[in-house]
Amino acid sequence: MSGSVYGKNFQVSTWGESHGKGIGVVVDGCPAGLLLSEETVQKYLDRRKPGQTRYSTPRKEPDSVEILSGVFEGRTTGTPISMVVYNTSQRSKDYSEIAQYYRPGHADYTFDQKYGFRDYRGGGRSSGRETVSRVAAGAVASEVLKELGVEVFAYTKEIGGISVDEKRAFRENITKSPLFMPDLEASEQAELLLERKMKQQDSAGGIIECVVKGLPAGVGEPVFEKLDANLAKAVMSIGAVKGVEIGDGFAVAGAFGSENNDSFTLGKDGEITKCTNHAGGILGGISDGSDIILRAAVKPTPSIAKAQKTVNCQGEEMEVCIRGRHDPVIVPRAVVVVEAMTAITVLDMLFSSMASSMESLKRFFVK
Amino acid sequence: MSGSVYGKNFQVSTWGESHGKGIGVVVDGCPAGLLLSEETVQKYLDRRKPGQTRYSTPRKEPDSVEILSGVFEGRTTGTPISMVVYNTSQRSKDYSEIAQYYRPGHADYTFDQKYGFRDYRGGGRSSGRETVSRVAAGAVASEVLKELGVEVFAYTKEIGGISVDEKRAFRENITKSPLFMPDLEASEQAELLLERKMKQQDSAGGIIECVVKGLPAGVGEPVFEKLDANLAKAVMSIGAVKGVEIGDGFAVAGAFGSENNDSFTLGKDGEITKCTNHAGGILGGISDGSDIILRAAVKPTPSIAKAQKTVNCQGEEMEVCIRGRHDPVIVPRAVVVVEAMTAITVLDMLFSSMASSMESLKRFFVK
Amino acid sequence: MSGSVYGKNFQVSTWGESHGKGIGVVVDGCPAGLLLSEETVQKYLDRRKPGQTRYSTPRKEPDSVEILSGVFEGRTTGTPISMVVYNTSQRSKDYSEIAQYYRPGHADYTFDQKYGFRDYRGGGRSSGRETVSRVAAGAVASEVLKELGVEVFAYTKEIGGISVDEKRAFRENITKSPLFMPDLEASEQAELLLERKMKQQDSAGGIIECVVKGLPAGVGEPVFEKLDANLAKAVMSIGAVKGVEIGDGFAVAGAFGSENNDSFTLGKDGEITKCTNHAGGILGGISDGSDIILRAAVKPTPSIAKAQKTVNCQGEEMEVCIRGRHDPVIVPRAVVVVEAMTAITVLDMLFSSMASSMESLKRFFVK
Amino acid sequence: MSGSVYGKNFQVSTWGESHGKGIGVVVDGCPAGLLLSEETVQKYLDRRKPGQTRYSTPRKEPDSVEILSGVFEGRTTGTPISMVVYNTSQRSKDYSEIAQYYRPGHADYTFDQKYGFRDYRGGGRSSGRETVSRVAAGAVASEVLKELGVEVFAYTKEIGGISVDEKRAFRENITKSPLFMPDLEASEQAELLLERKMKQQDSAGGIIECVVKGLPAGVGEPVFEKLDANLAKAVMSIGAVKGVEIGDGFAVAGAFGSENNDSFTLGKDGEITKCTNHAGGILGGISDGSDIILRAAVKPTPSIAKAQKTVNCQGEEMEVCIRGRHDPVIVPRAVVVVEAMTAITVLDMLFSSMASSMESLKRFFVK
Repeated sequence: MSGSVYGKNFQVSTWGESHGKGIGVVVDGCPAGLLLSEETVQKYLDRRKPGQTRYSTPRKEPDSVEILSGVFEGRTTGTPISMVVYNTSQRSKDYSEIAQYYRPGHADYTFDQKYGFRDYRGGGRSSGRETVSRVAAGAVASEVLKELGVEVFAYTKEIGGISVDEKRAFRENITKSPLFMPDLEASEQAELLLERKMKQQDSAGGIIECVVKGLPAGVGEPVFEKLDANLAKAVMSIGAVKGVEIGDGFAVAGAFGSENNDSFTLGKDGEITKCTNHAGGILGGISDGSDIILRAAVKPTPSIAKAQKTVNCQGEEMEVCIRGRHDPVIVPRAVVVVEAMTAITVLDMLFSSMASSMESLKRFFVK
Repeated sequence: MSGSVYGKNFQVSTWGESHGKGIGVVVDGCPAGLLLSEETVQKYLDRRKPGQTRYSTPRKEPDSVEILSGVFEGRTTGTPISMVVYNTSQRSKDYSEIAQYYRPGHADYTFDQKYGFRDYRGGGRSSGRETVSRVAAGAVASEVLKELGVEVFAYTKEIGGISVDEKRAFRENITKSPLFMPDLEASEQAELLLERKMKQQDSAGGIIECVVKGLPAGVGEPVFEKLDANLAKAVMSIGAVKGVEIGDGFAVAGAFGSENNDSFTLGKDGEITKCTNHAGGILGGISDGSDIILRAAVKPTPSIAKAQKTVNCQGEEMEVCIRGRHDPVIVPRAVVVVEAMTAITVLDMLFSSMASSMESLKRFFVK
Repeated sequence: MSGSVYGKNFQVSTWGESHGKGIGVVVDGCPAGLLLSEETVQKYLDRRKPGQTRYSTPRKEPDSVEILSGVFEGRTTGTPISMVVYNTSQRSKDYSEIAQYYRPGHADYTFDQKYGFRDYRGGGRSSGRETVSRVAAGAVASEVLKELGVEVFAYTKEIGGISVDEKRAFRENITKSPLFMPDLEASEQAELLLERKMKQQDSAGGIIECVVKGLPAGVGEPVFEKLDANLAKAVMSIGAVKGVEIGDGFAVAGAFGSENNDSFTLGKDGEITKCTNHAGGILGGISDGSDIILRAAVKPTPSIAKAQKTVNCQGEEMEVCIRGRHDPVIVPRAVVVVEAMTAITVLDMLFSSMASSMESLKRFFVK
Repeated sequence: MSGSVYGKNFQVSTWGESHGKGIGVVVDGCPAGLLLSEETVQKYLDRRKPGQTRYSTPRKEPDSVEILSGVFEGRTTGTPISMVVYNTSQRSKDYSEIAQYYRPGHADYTFDQKYGFRDYRGGGRSSGRETVSRVAAGAVASEVLKELGVEVFAYTKEIGGISVDEKRAFRENITKSPLFMPDLEASEQAELLLERKMKQQDSAGGIIECVVKGLPAGVGEPVFEKLDANLAKAVMSIGAVKGVEIGDGFAVAGAFGSENNDSFTLGKDGEITKCTNHAGGILGGISDGSDIILRAAVKPTPSIAKAQKTVNCQGEEMEVCIRGRHDPVIVPRAVVVVEAMTAITVLDMLFSSMASSMESLKRFFVK
């Protein structure tokens, strides 16, 4: 049954396969009047584009987005925004072989089990190329959020065990690092590690961190549609993500209450604020006005040239070496995807928070 | 807007506050013909009942469930199953004080910000008591799954940094440990730690692990309604959970592709299986036929007697010591809650997988 | 799969059978701060109570509602409002016979086909008693709408072919007529007809009309979540309703464009308004600021004492006379049910309209 | 907020404006393995194509559909099917004038009120051209249903008061009539009426009937997701539809119970069946195994050349004559749209009925 539609009031509906005609998304529920152009969306897409550094596949995919509906005279109309990126660089022969066996760490086997057969070209729908749609939709959400003073940004926190050192981390470094790491020293070390892994025909994993700034308190709907619950779903739905955490995340397991609780205090303008932010900006599933902080654990690229044991579709054991143009690490290109899913979710939940009280409802409807 | 309804085809709708008249749930979408009694549901609820060990609040809450609808002559009818647990042991005076200030680590502040005021008695809707509804609904889901040969069970993996040792872990130990730990030696150490923390008027966090056995391959709907994505939401929606991971989870960040990929091989009956299960039973968001494995990070109980800084509703800084009957650790009582949310999610997604192919549809509808 | 949850952002989840322990509803998404008491909800329920006139079943059902959650110190808290009406007057023996055969015009046969068996007592879940939940939920929605200046009211338009004459129709007559007809002369004629039908052991159908006043323009989300589309679903979901129309409804089929179009004009304050209201207040699925007008066609009570042919569960043809306490007409008691479903739908769609433009979003979120 | 996504498990997401780049739909939840080609979908689209007779606009729109995803080697893959029809025949100058005023009977005014401005070219998103997406999605649903032995077809029942005579109605006539009427005599009369109306610069309305054959008993989820409730929403969401009825529909208002009840009887193979079908194949919201019958009332085309009063965007009263290429009647081209929305809804509800009982669930999952 359906599974490619996400969101409740800001809904995105994605489609497309790695080697089909294209990849696209319909964004439904975007408010009317937002300035939106293909150039704006393209900027977000360019951040996941392959071929930018030697740590991403050398495939050349211009990935030019086209807006097909929902924008009139430069502004969104409130009706669905359909966007498409036509595929141009598929070398289908590269992939014909993989029709015959199940690649370890990939969804070949589960797709066959579920659907009876699969579009094997480049992974079909299970390819990372599917995230083009997420990024295009995330661009729209981010642009709406910006207008409301809410900013979402993500970066690489760790690759292959090499972590960003908070003391050396600066936001302006993110775009200077080919791995989108805010600590350039860590970035260099990680690059060396990746070189080694590439020589070993292997791949590495890592951690992406995402921050939301400027979100007002009160966003999130207990007890199931909590802000953190929806962020967890959004980010875990990205291929290769195997864990999600908010604030201190798994570290809370070893912390004690007196350490983990964030004390409330008064800010310099007398406003209520927190002394620390172990909670990652969410209490009881509702934003508390401080930064939202989440992290995603990303597994190493499953496509590696190193020999691996597997089984073919005829049910025979065999050995495979996955050739072709594969990233030695997924993390850097997934940074903007995590950001996109976060933005979509935050905007959707912002909409949901508009009717929390009679007072806010009356302010809206009663003149 | 609404947030207390969960699930797409197997939907649960929960209600109730800590110190209101009761706590309840409506389970909609349970197939007709399931044997179901109050005794069956009660067994699940008893596992989260307070007052069972000295590591849980000494409040006595019989928490007797009553089934109000949806069952006729001992079997479910296919119509909504309404269940209620009336509250009997609320000492409202214990809580009147907390109306005046914002407890650190609690949702007092965010509820006030969102709704304008709050039911402050025992935390109201944001109380852990809300999970009674989840467990009752989870009981129904688990019973359906059992009939299909699918088993869901959870246990404590870690408390305050003390972890279960796989070599000493046995499933039959789980119910022998007051902390629901499958390793009795670790359990004893954790108990000692909790004693210490109680004396220090402090609290501890931990990790819960949940396993699903017998789930057929093919469950999960890419790209957003993936099995892992929905499990992440389900588990993250539980109060105090700050992180969720599947399979190796955050450990994948430091692993390499050649280690993290699970090779396919042939089982003893010639069936396709995996040599390892780093993926936790999910590939591309779809179950692969092996055990589903997930973990949740649970923060330390925020209510501690130790003095903490905070702010009162008049906007003045103050110091608080949260008195009353509070668990020094949330983990043991949350074990059955994680299990419940997992069962609900797995059943819901199982329903969604019934129309994956024309072949399965025809088997169902064409005679 | 689930089917007893209605609404997107204002969600109601209903449960209960005619002769089970009770009937109830969970209302999720009601804004915090609304004054709400059991007395208020009771007033709505009393309008569908049986035994008020000789044209409704003489069963005495006090139908006293109890609010179990979501209200604190007289006001809604923003969390789910659980309401229950315990059943008190079930004479199960009256109904035991109907377990054996399929009553014409009832859902006995389809429930058996769908679920394998059924709670046959008084129709179980398919009983009109299920609408108690709808009315209780509708009461909450109506109270919210009132605060926003939106009023929803319904009345009987026609019974057994006897129609209200617009020239004699006055709103204040509605509660004076035992059939809730705004034209007292038509009401008397309809009463005589019902007397005749009761003697003939037969029953009559009719039409209910519902009006929404004060709804601002701009409510409704094209192209599927149109206001009229959702009203049609809401009203058609009421048992016994076989048709729904908006504005001129089926009469448009015989009208010509020049007659059916509503010309725009300027009102006395220079505001844009319509000369006529053939559209029933909805253009392109969006409210246009004039009265919303809808009608529902209600079939005659299927339970009649007159002999009818049918089949029993053993697959034998037989004849039945449905004895017991049945209304000779469903319409009057369904008036408040149509009103309730309309109010729920209008409120839900009002919520959805809050993010239609960046301008309204900014007014809400940017200070 | 979002409104262009329809369905729960078989979900369609539509986009596009009359004079934008194109019109499209993403169909999510179609089972894998269905034979599907552009030719198949095109056949359905050709039935709503303009320019086929003199009773439809002489605009030439080839309306060629392109499938962009979800089909591999001639079969659906179970992943989203994206379809697009690029717009080729927009004469934007025809429409520039209507930017200045509010056309009576159109959504110009409500779009402006809701969104602040509108894409005025040809009605933008509120144009009937939007139904291209519905028909393309309906084609997919119909093809799935056919494989299951379920057939959906619609035809014109009435135009401008001229009704089909059941005695002269034959299914094979439908495609012979330029108005898709199964009674060729009525068709001729209706054609004469339309000629007259065209000369008078006016337009006519009518009624469309749709029949579903072969649907098994048991489809529909009480109490809100009833089959008739969802059909009502689906059909009412089509622009110009102002009423929906099931079976005898509004005629039940004047019928008595003894006439309106359908007696059960035994068929020639001993199966349970009904003597009549006043209910239109639905009892208690669940299909009963007989034909589903529904009707939609369609208003006259609002665009007429006859002079009408209206108001311009500057708030001045004025007179307009809507020139351009408009159908004198919407009905014939809407026939396939009603059929499409019915097919989509029936298939979606069929999916929902797969988990009605433990028995059916076990048949599916337990080997």
